Amino acid sequence: MGEGNGRLQSVLSGIRVLDFSRIFAGPAATQILGDLGADIIKIEEPGHGDDARTFGVTAEAMRDFGASPSFLALNRNKRSMVLDLRQQAARDVAVAMAARCDVLIHNFRPGGMDKFGLGYEALRAANPRLVYCEFSAYGDRGPLSHLGANDVALQAHSGLMSITGEADRPAVRSGTAVVDLHASMGLVSAILAALLHRERTGQGQRVETSLLRSGAHLMNYFYTEYWQDGTVRGRMGTANHLSVPNQAFPATDGSVIIISPADDMWRRLTVALDAPHLDRAEFKTAFDRRRNRDTLITELTAVTSRMSCAELVQRLGAAKVNVSKVNSVGEAADDPQLAAIGAVVEQQVGGRMVKSVAAPFAMSETPTKASRPPPRHGEHTDELLREFGYGAEAISALRAGGALGAVPSQAAE
Amino acid sequence: MGEGNGRLQSVLSGIRVLDFSRIFAGPAATQILGDLGADIIKIEEPGHGDDARTFGVTAEAMRDFGASPSFLALNRNKRSMVLDLRQQAARDVAVAMAARCDVLIHNFRPGGMDKFGLGYEALRAANPRLVYCEFSAYGDRGPLSHLGANDVALQAHSGLMSITGEADRPAVRSGTAVVDLHASMGLVSAILAALLHRERTGQGQRVETSLLRSGAHLMNYFYTEYWQDGTVRGRMGTANHLSVPNQAFPATDGSVIIISPADDMWRRLTVALDAPHLDRAEFKTAFDRRRNRDTLITELTAVTSRMSCAELVQRLGAAKVNVSKVNSVGEAADDPQLAAIGAVVEQQVGGRMVKSVAAPFAMSETPTKASRPPPRHGEHTDELLREFGYGAEAISALRAGGALGAVPSQAAE
Repeated sequence: MGEGNGRLQSVLSGIRVLDFSRIFAGPAATQILGDLGADIIKIEEPGHGDDARTFGVTAEAMRDFGASPSFLALNRNKRSMVLDLRQQAARDVAVAMAARCDVLIHNFRPGGMDKFGLGYEALRAANPRLVYCEFSAYGDRGPLSHLGANDVALQAHSGLMSITGEADRPAVRSGTAVVDLHASMGLVSAILAALLHRERTGQGQRVETSLLRSGAHLMNYFYTEYWQDGTVRGRMGTANHLSVPNQAFPATDGSVIIISPADDMWRRLTVALDAPHLDRAEFKTAFDRRRNRDTLITELTAVTSRMSCAELVQRLGAAKVNVSKVNSVGEAADDPQLAAIGAVVEQQVGGRMVKSVAAPFAMSETPTKASRPPPRHGEHTDELLREFGYGAEAISALRAGGALGAVPSQAAE
Repeated sequence: MGEGNGRLQSVLSGIRVLDFSRIFAGPAATQILGDLGADIIKIEEPGHGDDARTFGVTAEAMRDFGASPSFLALNRNKRSMVLDLRQQAARDVAVAMAARCDVLIHNFRPGGMDKFGLGYEALRAANPRLVYCEFSAYGDRGPLSHLGANDVALQAHSGLMSITGEADRPAVRSGTAVVDLHASMGLVSAILAALLHRERTGQGQRVETSLLRSGAHLMNYFYTEYWQDGTVRGRMGTANHLSVPNQAFPATDGSVIIISPADDMWRRLTVALDAPHLDRAEFKTAFDRRRNRDTLITELTAVTSRMSCAELVQRLGAAKVNVSKVNSVGEAADDPQLAAIGAVVEQQVGGRMVKSVAAPFAMSETPTKASRPPPRHGEHTDELLREFGYGAEAISALRAGGALGAVPSQAAE
């Protein structure tokens, strides 16, 4: 398997991924595999294709960009092919392609792929090197495995929602799809681990994760605490139970987060804010500050509310006290630091430039790349069929029979 | 590099990880590498060691379990060794160990490891196969790279906080350390990708991520939308802008999340809840339901508030409408589904059993394992020094000189 001692241009060059996943977690995962150089073949249903193409989108954005922001954010470095898996001819194509790919990923409900003849046991017989990756809501067994769910359902099920919000107000969701996007990295890790194992042994395997596992991983220290002594944490606004101060404080023109878990950092804070009265015995240690939480927060609020965000960030940052402004989405996206570290990618979509967030890590010798903009629905159907050995006549026959859906929609263009 | 065509017991058997990381993201990452079979050598400072050992812990939990829930949740499958890197003799040991390890990971501020002679350039010369992994708050360059930060600071900086909370109330944090824990999976992915590249080429490299990259990845579709047309989303309680209904609804005894992004799912909902009046033109399509959000939510609330959580989950689940109860931390941790999918690990710590959450994915041929409980501070210092070739006299000399800190603390036992 090794390619000698030369450098590979990308980690996953030569790796083909047959991607039946939809919405967020799977597409987010395969985008990262594409960033690492894999060839991602996105199989979409006829009609609308990946539901995320229209999620929350306005008519104007559809006209200008051809797809929703969430689709464009998560589908670069892929080619799109339409297969109508309700048709036997399409299923035959999918099986033939899977036999020649390195990775298959899907998020049909448990058992869904078996009905198409695309289950793990069937495909491993044809391709024992295949890494077969399944993603579901609640996992592949157990009393809830038949249920569908999405991000916010697992924010609720996992208990995350119960600890998010103000103490005396209803629970709220974490504003972004944290469970879905965290799950995407579980998928990436599982697939990379299986590819590494295959590189060493020649054998593929089945890997699996779920929104349930993702939510539980995000909640792990809350569960451990509950399992230890029965503690059930609740909502604390911007604060948390681990240390004090560790929350938002008001400024004259917004608010800033101030955190100082360490005792020496707390002393530096009192100096940086010209607040020597806060450097006293009842706030001296982490235990003291947690015990006297209310007093500390009241007194520190009195200090911060006389300064601007910029002044607080400047003073505390210079003193190596952890501090951050509470940014809006626009302020965060435009903050120069994000582009400075190379975390913004720009690609042309339908004559316009679309920015998206780069892979969530960087590599010195095999840098991640944005090689292709997000595809139109079915943009590469014919090209892919040719690459997998289908001739013009076979493609025409597939199309005439409806296996490729209607002629690729131009509406998204 | 290959090990023939036999099966490996674990993906990372034989891989040694020298782990200088602290708090959440790094330890969460190396725990997963340990679950995959790597030998994780956790280097801790003298004194308290990893700060997470005491984060938010009560005196009772310290006495009973020896460490905080967050430490115990994130540090299984590791051995702990104390080195006082302020001492040259300790730095020499660290360099000698790094020369014989496969992966090094740290989260010192940029430049911090160079001061110890443990920077990437120095170590790659000694060990060109080393995968060197760095983790920081804002990344390794750019105007904010000198700042320290933690999870909640990046929830604020990234804009996540600005979209979390009720519309007419202050922003709140996502109740768990989502940015930190999501970053841990960026670290796992980057390290696995680099190990795969090394397996194919023989070469190590430097990989890097940050809380900033993690936060941006969680916010990617919000940034893309802002970059496209300037939209700045705000807070929506439990709801979101992607589809309607997609939020919490009240029941007689709690609340449930109901989501139905697809039109046929919405029709099934109206049947399942005996609410034919909701199956009408103004709610027919996803666009219709978003446009008539307020009316729909008012009318659906009137229906759900007459039923119990259990009845809503039963009716909607049976109709394949996405539904979930809003669970407390305890309800979530104890829900039988989590154990049913093998996502709970149990180990003995100081005479008591401690449960933690398993790796966020499963593998059929190389299952993840919980081989060791979380270590006491410095528990394996001598054992590790012997494994790396230090004799009894050399170890005594290191200890007498203070390079290993004080005699390993028994307080944590």
